[in-house]
Amino acid sequence: MSIPNTTARLLITCPDKPGIVSAVSSFLYNHGVNITDLDQHSTQAEDGTYFMRLEFQTPHLEHSRRVLGKEFGETVATHYNMDWRLSFAADVKKVAILVSRFDHALLELLWRWSRCTLPCQITSVISNHPDLENDVKSFGVQFHHVPVTKDNKVEAEARINELLQGNDLVVLARYMQVLSSDFVAKWPHKIINIHHSFLPAFVGANPYQQAHDKGVKLIGATAHYVTADLDQGPIIEQDVDRVTHRDEVDSLRDMGQDVERNVLARAVKWHLEERIIVHGNKTIVFN
Amino acid sequence: MSIPNTTARLLITCPDKPGIVSAVSSFLYNHGVNITDLDQHSTQAEDGTYFMRLEFQTPHLEHSRRVLGKEFGETVATHYNMDWRLSFAADVKKVAILVSRFDHALLELLWRWSRCTLPCQITSVISNHPDLENDVKSFGVQFHHVPVTKDNKVEAEARINELLQGNDLVVLARYMQVLSSDFVAKWPHKIINIHHSFLPAFVGANPYQQAHDKGVKLIGATAHYVTADLDQGPIIEQDVDRVTHRDEVDSLRDMGQDVERNVLARAVKWHLEERIIVHGNKTIVFN
Amino acid sequence: MSIPNTTARLLITCPDKPGIVSAVSSFLYNHGVNITDLDQHSTQAEDGTYFMRLEFQTPHLEHSRRVLGKEFGETVATHYNMDWRLSFAADVKKVAILVSRFDHALLELLWRWSRCTLPCQITSVISNHPDLENDVKSFGVQFHHVPVTKDNKVEAEARINELLQGNDLVVLARYMQVLSSDFVAKWPHKIINIHHSFLPAFVGANPYQQAHDKGVKLIGATAHYVTADLDQGPIIEQDVDRVTHRDEVDSLRDMGQDVERNVLARAVKWHLEERIIVHGNKTIVFN
Amino acid sequence: MSIPNTTARLLITCPDKPGIVSAVSSFLYNHGVNITDLDQHSTQAEDGTYFMRLEFQTPHLEHSRRVLGKEFGETVATHYNMDWRLSFAADVKKVAILVSRFDHALLELLWRWSRCTLPCQITSVISNHPDLENDVKSFGVQFHHVPVTKDNKVEAEARINELLQGNDLVVLARYMQVLSSDFVAKWPHKIINIHHSFLPAFVGANPYQQAHDKGVKLIGATAHYVTADLDQGPIIEQDVDRVTHRDEVDSLRDMGQDVERNVLARAVKWHLEERIIVHGNKTIVFN
Repeated sequence: MSIPNTTARLLITCPDKPGIVSAVSSFLYNHGVNITDLDQHSTQAEDGTYFMRLEFQTPHLEHSRRVLGKEFGETVATHYNMDWRLSFAADVKKVAILVSRFDHALLELLWRWSRCTLPCQITSVISNHPDLENDVKSFGVQFHHVPVTKDNKVEAEARINELLQGNDLVVLARYMQVLSSDFVAKWPHKIINIHHSFLPAFVGANPYQQAHDKGVKLIGATAHYVTADLDQGPIIEQDVDRVTHRDEVDSLRDMGQDVERNVLARAVKWHLEERIIVHGNKTIVFN
Repeated sequence: MSIPNTTARLLITCPDKPGIVSAVSSFLYNHGVNITDLDQHSTQAEDGTYFMRLEFQTPHLEHSRRVLGKEFGETVATHYNMDWRLSFAADVKKVAILVSRFDHALLELLWRWSRCTLPCQITSVISNHPDLENDVKSFGVQFHHVPVTKDNKVEAEARINELLQGNDLVVLARYMQVLSSDFVAKWPHKIINIHHSFLPAFVGANPYQQAHDKGVKLIGATAHYVTADLDQGPIIEQDVDRVTHRDEVDSLRDMGQDVERNVLARAVKWHLEERIIVHGNKTIVFN
Repeated sequence: MSIPNTTARLLITCPDKPGIVSAVSSFLYNHGVNITDLDQHSTQAEDGTYFMRLEFQTPHLEHSRRVLGKEFGETVATHYNMDWRLSFAADVKKVAILVSRFDHALLELLWRWSRCTLPCQITSVISNHPDLENDVKSFGVQFHHVPVTKDNKVEAEARINELLQGNDLVVLARYMQVLSSDFVAKWPHKIINIHHSFLPAFVGANPYQQAHDKGVKLIGATAHYVTADLDQGPIIEQDVDRVTHRDEVDSLRDMGQDVERNVLARAVKWHLEERIIVHGNKTIVFN
Repeated sequence: MSIPNTTARLLITCPDKPGIVSAVSSFLYNHGVNITDLDQHSTQAEDGTYFMRLEFQTPHLEHSRRVLGKEFGETVATHYNMDWRLSFAADVKKVAILVSRFDHALLELLWRWSRCTLPCQITSVISNHPDLENDVKSFGVQFHHVPVTKDNKVEAEARINELLQGNDLVVLARYMQVLSSDFVAKWPHKIINIHHSFLPAFVGANPYQQAHDKGVKLIGATAHYVTADLDQGPIIEQDVDRVTHRDEVDSLRDMGQDVERNVLARAVKWHLEERIIVHGNKTIVFN
């Protein structure tokens, strides 16, 4: 769905109290912008935390860019003690993808991006294996091979971090190396991972083998923000598919990969459209 | 989920223009009510039709009941040329159910109502067959048997209409008689029907037989408001289940009835929670 | 779907080797029975374990009952070293239900049974609380109240076991007491439990609270055979429903209960239709 | 899932009578082949039509190829008046794809094929537009541009038919030209089309527009064999996704395309694995 270039989004988190909607919407109305989407959530009826997402059209984008955020911060946001983020669809987000050898999640993202259903600029793909270089380059995207071994892990992460500079989002599209806490701390809520199970079931390695051993009747995938705690970051999206006793580990993997690519693509899209607010270890997803 | 007794809902339809959110939320704020849920939709970016649903808490319910609607109507609603409806959760809606011989949809509604997950008062069940009288009475609900034949259709509908007086909603839980246009006109957007197919596929009689003849791989059910045009009223909710070549008409019917009862229960709940706005032949469902 | 009273089912587990289908189907053909359904599975291409389910019609039921099993056991089953089970639809299975206070799973089973879509005889309901007595009796089913406390657990289980004598299957329809290993050992693969989460996620108490704390985007339910290892028995069926950040614990529970009743009803039906073979800690479900 | 090269499949349709399983399985056993999968279906308990699918391993593939079919045809198949088809996984099926401008269904097939999850050889892609040439060639697959106009339709179809010679299956991956009855008659049950709606709803052009106008809450896709009767051929597979009042025609199309590619990929895979028997205007799908 094409989003007009004049679209802006405002995400707000603050202590819940009466008058917030009125204050925010009146501020925007007085600045001549037209609200086209609005959603809110409160964690509880009283004394909860309040979350709000507004989408609006700014006819005078350059003016809005200079003035709107500054004035909002000094008035409404200060008054209500808000965490807030204003962003403009015209500022296309830059995205880098980390991947190892499996291509399914990577290609799904590249394909959706190439047909303009992922509103971003995919700047580069970084891999610890050289295998997918040609696939990536056929989309006109840079490919960097950064091998990672036990011995060079620190240097490799430094190199990756250097390559990532300037990006707004990092997507782990089945990147099979565990990132260090130091690395993760540099990209708070800016790394999305696809885990190949319905978390919290089957944390860790080989979830399809674990699922097969357990004899589950559904397999799943989970897209989540990466935190220092492996496979425990805030969940963005999950989905499952039905399996039977006939499915061996390899067919679980084949079916699971289809779930993975859809789940990851949805999570990345929602992040790019500024639909997600992280609150503690959970997400608010306005969609 | 328990809804506080102080909850009020405001549903709005009007021509879209800037300032509506600000005007409505400021009005409510100035009247000391706290907005706890807000959703909106516009049919198009410019010059569309605008729809809004607000849920808010009115600490002084009796005062609000007397004053809020009147003042809103005279000020904001008039200014923006709104169709609007204000309702209070404390005014529990009265619901009557029409049914023929199949009990699945009826019992699902009675059961959910009896455990307080359908926020309404089920006042009575009316049937053209006597079969379900005991089932209904075991829930402590009145049962009326109104036989319908070719010859007495006009009288029967008159009798049903008489029995329905005072109710806010009529649910056709597999009522197998076609209601006349005159009857339907008396209950605009106040009759919900469950059709046992994924409309618009398999309009009319025997949809499970039609589905079997066609060899479809999914069967569905559709809950919709009843209009004079058979099976063509605004769709509220739909769902499907997967079937195979092994399923004969009777197993399609068994599986389909499970879909029917869930779809109907959801549609009725959303109506009772004032989540639905009808616009032309379509519905806006805020959930 | 009505199953003819002449229907018999044969379930087989044995080491896989060539010739089994031929031997079994020829045996049945030579005994004048007509195979109406046949399914098989092997754990691996060579040297695996082989599973087979046959459904067939026995025109001379009394003769078959006396002769068929005996001869099959002495010839084909011995030759191929089979575990096998022959059963006749005419021998309606007796089922007892254990329940605590939640009624949703219990009522779903009673309702399906009352309209003849669960092919069994529900003989009795046993509960550690008196609350559901009237509901149960309105279906014409015996209700036994067996209170369980810390101090009387042994006696209570003995009483329950006594009441269960003569039943073929025990269903735990949200029975909130943990059964002892001794008790479970008396009913191998004859106790089906509904667990209110997508196992192995959220083992143990309060899974909906756990799911809420974790912020998952799907909630599920799992029907499984009960073994001495809590919540770890062979999984029969699982399903999920989609939830959002808006869902509090109580709405997760409401939605989850709908999933629970469907999952449990399917699992019980499949058990009654002799569709399930347990193999190690997993199930083969032929459907 | 890797299928051994020694795998053979036998598909059978015949009048149902006792003894068929025994006769077929004994024939195979006597020829030294090991049955690894077997499924059957009968349209009714007595005097129905019987369908069977067997998968088995032929250690001596060349011998089997020469002898097995011939002997089966002369003995069992003749005796039971069978329509039957024996095929060998080693004889990889050749597939051509027809497409217009939408690339989603095409790329899904090419991608699955390139990673060996579609067991076939994709020989060529034919399009009435030149747009997708580079995409196709990057997979190492031939691309033919055959423009179709009102005036050259007969010649164009002749040219297409010529290019298709030698292929076993033709897939219409959103090919927007209606094929003539003459053309279709040359490829009976060998052309699979993806229709972008849940048939029989929204037959014909612009189904996403139709779905939007109707206000449905689910959109779907249908893969079916092509017959002379437009959009009416035997249905192989269907699926749906949930939509809301927020979805405009273009977002219905985006979401629908995801459904389309999965539905088409499943249907093509099942055809290639010889899982489908067409019976009248319906399909038996053994999976």
